Amino acid sequence: MVEVVIIGSMGLDDIETPFGKAEAVLGGSCTYASLAASFFSPCGIVAVVGEDFPQEHIEFLQSKNVDLAGIERKGRTFRWGGSYEFDMNEAKTLRTELNCLAEFDPKLPEEYQDAKYVFLANTDPQIQLSVLEQMKSPALVVMDTMNFWITHKKETLLEVIRKIDVLLLNDGEARQLFGTPNLVAATKQALSLGPRAIIIKKGEHGALLFTKDSHFNCAGYPLEVIKDPTGCGDCFGGGFIGYLASQNELSDRNIRRAIVYGSVIASFNAEDFSIARLKAISHAQIEERFKEFQDHREF
Amino acid sequence: MVEVVIIGSMGLDDIETPFGKAEAVLGGSCTYASLAASFFSPCGIVAVVGEDFPQEHIEFLQSKNVDLAGIERKGRTFRWGGSYEFDMNEAKTLRTELNCLAEFDPKLPEEYQDAKYVFLANTDPQIQLSVLEQMKSPALVVMDTMNFWITHKKETLLEVIRKIDVLLLNDGEARQLFGTPNLVAATKQALSLGPRAIIIKKGEHGALLFTKDSHFNCAGYPLEVIKDPTGCGDCFGGGFIGYLASQNELSDRNIRRAIVYGSVIASFNAEDFSIARLKAISHAQIEERFKEFQDHREF
Repeated sequence: MVEVVIIGSMGLDDIETPFGKAEAVLGGSCTYASLAASFFSPCGIVAVVGEDFPQEHIEFLQSKNVDLAGIERKGRTFRWGGSYEFDMNEAKTLRTELNCLAEFDPKLPEEYQDAKYVFLANTDPQIQLSVLEQMKSPALVVMDTMNFWITHKKETLLEVIRKIDVLLLNDGEARQLFGTPNLVAATKQALSLGPRAIIIKKGEHGALLFTKDSHFNCAGYPLEVIKDPTGCGDCFGGGFIGYLASQNELSDRNIRRAIVYGSVIASFNAEDFSIARLKAISHAQIEERFKEFQDHREF
Repeated sequence: MVEVVIIGSMGLDDIETPFGKAEAVLGGSCTYASLAASFFSPCGIVAVVGEDFPQEHIEFLQSKNVDLAGIERKGRTFRWGGSYEFDMNEAKTLRTELNCLAEFDPKLPEEYQDAKYVFLANTDPQIQLSVLEQMKSPALVVMDTMNFWITHKKETLLEVIRKIDVLLLNDGEARQLFGTPNLVAATKQALSLGPRAIIIKKGEHGALLFTKDSHFNCAGYPLEVIKDPTGCGDCFGGGFIGYLASQNELSDRNIRRAIVYGSVIASFNAEDFSIARLKAISHAQIEERFKEFQDHREF
């Protein structure tokens, strides 16, 4: 039974960081988000990959509580190449080949349409809208986006934001989208569009939650080894919605705990290239780091 | 009775931010730090000002639990001019006139030398060292510094760090001083020099505490109005040591609470130019915001 539907990109990445490089490794927002969510809830993904997409990745995802009925195969796989400088907070995109992603017109499998939890991970807002229209009565819709869509499809993006419950944005993107240097002012504007919660992702500095009458912060985990931050935002979103779906009660407390679980998964993800860490971690390790997050903030 | 001795600069600032400007207003690390500390403990300051230093500032400090026996008057007052861009995280120095600060050779009043708490606020490390040598048996020495001294007096700075208990640094300075992009690695190096705690200040992103076996984070306060961040780091340090002196027990819990109190005072300070907010806030407001910091992190 699919509890969380996740839409986004799947593809192969070429990544270079000060700590090494990886070529044609599994990547994409949908990949990271679904793996993160699958630690907490069964999820189904809606994505397109090429005929050239390696079968081993398909088999790995299937082994991980991820339903692949929503995957379409067509043409060549989406490719992304990026590099990070020493501060590791921002990827520099070196290459983007949309390939099969360019004309993706998602069709939701029948059994996905009743799911209560939807994560519109970072992708073209037109695709996010199309998926949302195919869902029957979702209880919680979370969306993520990035500066590219703010610059090129702002109106469609705003249309999606008006229909969702939780908006994820990084701090620079929030400032860009709402034209103000002040994050609190930006989140007020975002809330006025309809979402009940805005979550500002700040990379190593953590995440902030803003609702109409509540504020919550979660600092980053103090990582000594950061090899590749690719997908950390997607892991955060996937862990967030996966945990909420597992609790099935949208209390303020659960939303706060979901932010911490999202941060836990994201922190593991940065420790190695591609999905290497997500492949290796156990539920016990997740719970252990969750307790560390608690200990790091008690006073 | 002076419980906290604070050494640093006093002067007049010219400040320009996107939200206004202020000319020849009261500034300096010692000013901000002593006002912040004075909310919790009586303190005495060691600083030099010029013959031209306005008497109203002297009278104001005297009215605020700040002992001025350690102030010397000589020549012209230290002047600093700086501006902030929209992100407000970093000051751009437009002008520095050291004036009387250039040849300052601090002499501690007899009654300061027995104080148990010392804050070496940001100033020339040679001056910090000289003050430290005049203290009889301090229980806790906290020091702050800035990139200027890392660049120009690194050896003396390291000499001071070897003699103190708590080092305050901003994240960029920690990376610069220890030659690594990773904060955890930088703080390990810092701890190996002798201090029992390293506190990384990150402006709006909050502060991080690292000790040999404990980590703590405190996010920033979500300010909608930020007029002038000048002195926030000094307020943080002053509030931190002032609170610790008031408790007079260096437990991990008190150190964590001191970090939150320091953050509370710093958050108020950013809301207006110069010391305008520090002049206006009450103990009740400080306690109220402290409770908000608690609420913003419970999950």
